[in-house]
Amino acid sequence: MNLYDAMSTLRAVRRLRPDPIPEDVLERVLNAATWAPTGGNLQPWHMVVVRDQAKKKSLQDLYLPRWQTYNGHYEERLAKMPEDQAEKSRKSLKAGDYLAENLGDVPVIVVFCFNPSNMAITDAKQDRPSIVGGGSVYPAVQNLLLAARSEGLGCVLTTLLCMDEPAVKNLLAIPEGWHTCAHIPLGYPVGGGHGSISRKPLAKMMSVDEF
Amino acid sequence: MNLYDAMSTLRAVRRLRPDPIPEDVLERVLNAATWAPTGGNLQPWHMVVVRDQAKKKSLQDLYLPRWQTYNGHYEERLAKMPEDQAEKSRKSLKAGDYLAENLGDVPVIVVFCFNPSNMAITDAKQDRPSIVGGGSVYPAVQNLLLAARSEGLGCVLTTLLCMDEPAVKNLLAIPEGWHTCAHIPLGYPVGGGHGSISRKPLAKMMSVDEF
Repeated sequence: MNLYDAMSTLRAVRRLRPDPIPEDVLERVLNAATWAPTGGNLQPWHMVVVRDQAKKKSLQDLYLPRWQTYNGHYEERLAKMPEDQAEKSRKSLKAGDYLAENLGDVPVIVVFCFNPSNMAITDAKQDRPSIVGGGSVYPAVQNLLLAARSEGLGCVLTTLLCMDEPAVKNLLAIPEGWHTCAHIPLGYPVGGGHGSISRKPLAKMMSVDEF
Repeated sequence: MNLYDAMSTLRAVRRLRPDPIPEDVLERVLNAATWAPTGGNLQPWHMVVVRDQAKKKSLQDLYLPRWQTYNGHYEERLAKMPEDQAEKSRKSLKAGDYLAENLGDVPVIVVFCFNPSNMAITDAKQDRPSIVGGGSVYPAVQNLLLAARSEGLGCVLTTLLCMDEPAVKNLLAIPEGWHTCAHIPLGYPVGGGHGSISRKPLAKMMSVDEF
């Protein structure tokens, strides 16, 4: 698939069918993640590819109440939005409900882990939230999402389960020193899947020489 | 360009020519960043595209001593590496020296900024370094790098300048509430540019159901 076509049609696909993913397709998607750049080429991340039915159901049991809380907060925002925007958001919240209620039935959930001892977190000492560690993991996550899109697999980057990290670590036997940073359900779409996306125009996202 | 070809040949290209980048090429590369997913589709990031010669030189003046310190620490590690790996690392450190000494002459440096007030940082309360904010910026950074690669532009994701964030914010008039998380020099390669990459095999980067 063409690079720009993949990027410009990669949307959050939250309604996924339980149908299995062929091994060769899944392997190409996972392999794409390994190509991503990382600080010092140390590749300080690891994917746990969750396929076991009981473990997926346990992830759903953790995810559903987190989603319901998030969704609740969002309702307040909807009231303040222009109607066309609110309508779009309502649709994506409904799709989020579907994901939360069916997470255990998607064929694969990829849990990205990271090890900060192999990261140079250059913004650790700044007096504000640090995010630079993410520079050695989320490029790999984006590669995985783009590869999934090119293979016709629905997917969405979720992070709500980070709030339940101790339980997730226990469930997936994630060792000490490793932590979680993304949970990506993969599966063939129920509906049309990927397609047009809604983003701000470039002119609003950049400036020249000064912010 | 084909998606998998772009991903699998995206390498850190640190020797860049000062030749200008045509406007249409640069615009496609910057635009690719805007397509990336972000939490709640809030797009909490902004690019400052630095083209002014004096500002680029100021960034070089900040970067060079940081690089020299980083490089110094690295020398210690080289002594402990197997010789073939050490040889590779030495080559990339030399390319890093070149970048640090010529950063002011690359045609464009893209400085990614982010606003944490528009991010749901779901790992903020975990007792370990937080990185989840990066999930709403580094997918955009990876899109930009892949687009640069497909346009034949050299590029590399750097974060060392985050250690000088106050000076960078002052130089680029970055407003309160916004912070920096990536500095990406863009330019046509001096040498062969992108090509083969060296990564761990997939089997070492994943496991099934349990870490």
